[in-house]
Amino acid sequence: MAELDIKEIYSATYALKNIIRNTDLIASPLMRLGCDIWIKPENLQVTGSFKVRGASYMISQLSDDEKQRGVIACSAGNHAQGVALAAKKYGIKCTICLPQGAPISKVEATRSYGAEICLVPGVYDDAYQRALQLQKENNQTFVHPFDDLQVIAGQGTIGLEIMNELPEADVIIVPVGGGGLISGVAFAAKHINPNVRIIGVQAEGAPSMFNSVRDKHIERLSSVSTIADGIAVKEPGIHTFDLVSRYVDEIVTVTDDEICAAILYLLERHKLIAEGAGAVSVAAAMFCNIPLAGKKTVCLVSGGNVDVTNLNRFINRGLQKNGRLCTLALAINDRPGQLVQISKIIADLGANVTAVMHERTNTFIDVNSCVLRVSMETRDQLHIDAICKAISDHGFTILPE
Amino acid sequence: MAELDIKEIYSATYALKNIIRNTDLIASPLMRLGCDIWIKPENLQVTGSFKVRGASYMISQLSDDEKQRGVIACSAGNHAQGVALAAKKYGIKCTICLPQGAPISKVEATRSYGAEICLVPGVYDDAYQRALQLQKENNQTFVHPFDDLQVIAGQGTIGLEIMNELPEADVIIVPVGGGGLISGVAFAAKHINPNVRIIGVQAEGAPSMFNSVRDKHIERLSSVSTIADGIAVKEPGIHTFDLVSRYVDEIVTVTDDEICAAILYLLERHKLIAEGAGAVSVAAAMFCNIPLAGKKTVCLVSGGNVDVTNLNRFINRGLQKNGRLCTLALAINDRPGQLVQISKIIADLGANVTAVMHERTNTFIDVNSCVLRVSMETRDQLHIDAICKAISDHGFTILPE
Repeated sequence: MAELDIKEIYSATYALKNIIRNTDLIASPLMRLGCDIWIKPENLQVTGSFKVRGASYMISQLSDDEKQRGVIACSAGNHAQGVALAAKKYGIKCTICLPQGAPISKVEATRSYGAEICLVPGVYDDAYQRALQLQKENNQTFVHPFDDLQVIAGQGTIGLEIMNELPEADVIIVPVGGGGLISGVAFAAKHINPNVRIIGVQAEGAPSMFNSVRDKHIERLSSVSTIADGIAVKEPGIHTFDLVSRYVDEIVTVTDDEICAAILYLLERHKLIAEGAGAVSVAAAMFCNIPLAGKKTVCLVSGGNVDVTNLNRFINRGLQKNGRLCTLALAINDRPGQLVQISKIIADLGANVTAVMHERTNTFIDVNSCVLRVSMETRDQLHIDAICKAISDHGFTILPE
Repeated sequence: MAELDIKEIYSATYALKNIIRNTDLIASPLMRLGCDIWIKPENLQVTGSFKVRGASYMISQLSDDEKQRGVIACSAGNHAQGVALAAKKYGIKCTICLPQGAPISKVEATRSYGAEICLVPGVYDDAYQRALQLQKENNQTFVHPFDDLQVIAGQGTIGLEIMNELPEADVIIVPVGGGGLISGVAFAAKHINPNVRIIGVQAEGAPSMFNSVRDKHIERLSSVSTIADGIAVKEPGIHTFDLVSRYVDEIVTVTDDEICAAILYLLERHKLIAEGAGAVSVAAAMFCNIPLAGKKTVCLVSGGNVDVTNLNRFINRGLQKNGRLCTLALAINDRPGQLVQISKIIADLGANVTAVMHERTNTFIDVNSCVLRVSMETRDQLHIDAICKAISDHGFTILPE
């Protein structure tokens, strides 16, 4: 198998100079108290994710003849936009196959970079088959989203940038989908300092690399389920599995709720939009009990292309996870005055009611009762506990969710 | 009246070195086609807004005796966080008065910087009176949010940074509330290049500086109404009115819908959270027909401290303003099959239905009809027009909103 060469990564930093944006580290003193953490904000990269690096470097290395024939890729997400922009910068033809149901905003963003869009009926696999077929028909170059040494070398430039800006870094935490990003980052960072610890993060609902490394051979998941769609990959690549096995110290997983809390932290504390896949590194630092005290840690936030219609859902889940938003269902007697009493208990404890729903058709409780569902803004879990206690003390029944 | 001195602003750049973060310009090629626009992202500043600059410089200039006695300020927003962090950096005592109804998230953020919080029953004016009273009792220094030459000098460092990074800047667009920010920026930028054009932006619902400059004397608004709470100021300051009158070339106003569209643009295209007040400069560039073609323009995005519970509302209004989200109310006959037909028309035209509401209790239409309210994701206004036409062509009545 061909080997990754550090010279390829150094060479990529030059090839990318006029395409990518500098993403300087941002100190994040409040992410986890007592730890020294920085964010590497690749969500601020052009196209909104790191993917443009690998795609650009690979395209830069094509022969004139290959450039003439153009490139093709299959993606509904960050890879599509990265390839489209890279092709535009090199002035070559680019076709992107997407499944027909892809979100309008992502299709339009890819189109806006000048790519030719091929909407394929069906799901991702159908789009992928169509891309392979088109590639053969038109003799284009297929740009793989992760399992390609030049693509990996392009992503590796992030490792060099981190070690250049913070040579004393002890730990780098990196999202893992197919493994292209962490392969490049780990290889480059350990070339500079073999003692830097590289921790990969996957979503609990899509642990393909986690499982494969644990079992020491490539495994394919039958299905994936996570809000972090950018790293919902069923099977690692051959190159990436090999590189991760050799250069990554540990892989951890995070839940969707933890990811939402991380998205919320980045939004409120840093005014940064991260997508689910981009925020898993922060979620790991916040929730995985990784020993980080006294260590200089960098969380790589890989992208920010979240659908705005999903953002609110993620924010609400993040607020719930942190005890800052809470919905209680109460069984109350169906007579006047009950709402007044409950509202007063909540107001006296300083919570802010945001929504009230009164249900008489719930069949689980007796016919003279009804269900009152109250949503409120709270400070934290202790605050919620105090409110629940006060409500119970007044004789109301809090129903299980 | 005392005069602002450029030496004060140069001196401030040194006083702020270890407190503030560098906020490099970000190119924004798609904000307005054919124009060369950059964003100065002060939402990425520590505390999430530029306010920390002015507060820090003022505090740095206090005598040892004054530092001993501490500072006090009245604010529920960015100024509170700026003063709190600045005081913490200089190790001095800080009291912040806020009205009791202030959002929990803002109170907690201010508290997290180490300020003593004084929650005052009533509204902002009550908190302000209490702050003045406390200041006299305890002999603290009152930090004014804008009408203070040292505070203005601190904000002016942004003008020097912009001209240092982009010496060929032709236009700088700046949010205007009390006028502290634009006074400092205009004074500093014109010191470097007297030909740079400074454009101020106010919210249409809070045009205090706009009116005052137009009428050539300070005017007080009886009320303000805008989502841009950070610039909802009823009356300009004495210093700021003078400086704006002399150094600002033009003031424009933007609507709340335009502000929401600007927030959405920054979020989707740049992965940046801006608050309403922070986004007015971008709204002006997008919607105010300011002649910017062939000019190098900087939009100062002054802050990002938006309440997360409001963010979704702003996003939805931004989507509506851009024709990407649309809710139609249709009068339909109350019989089976109608929803199928309408759904099909919409699907055939490629829009994505997000919510459907069926109302039978609307009293404005006849008793055999009901109202169907359909929300959908669309591409743009042309797409909406095509959908409306197709629905009308099939004999359905679209009700006015």
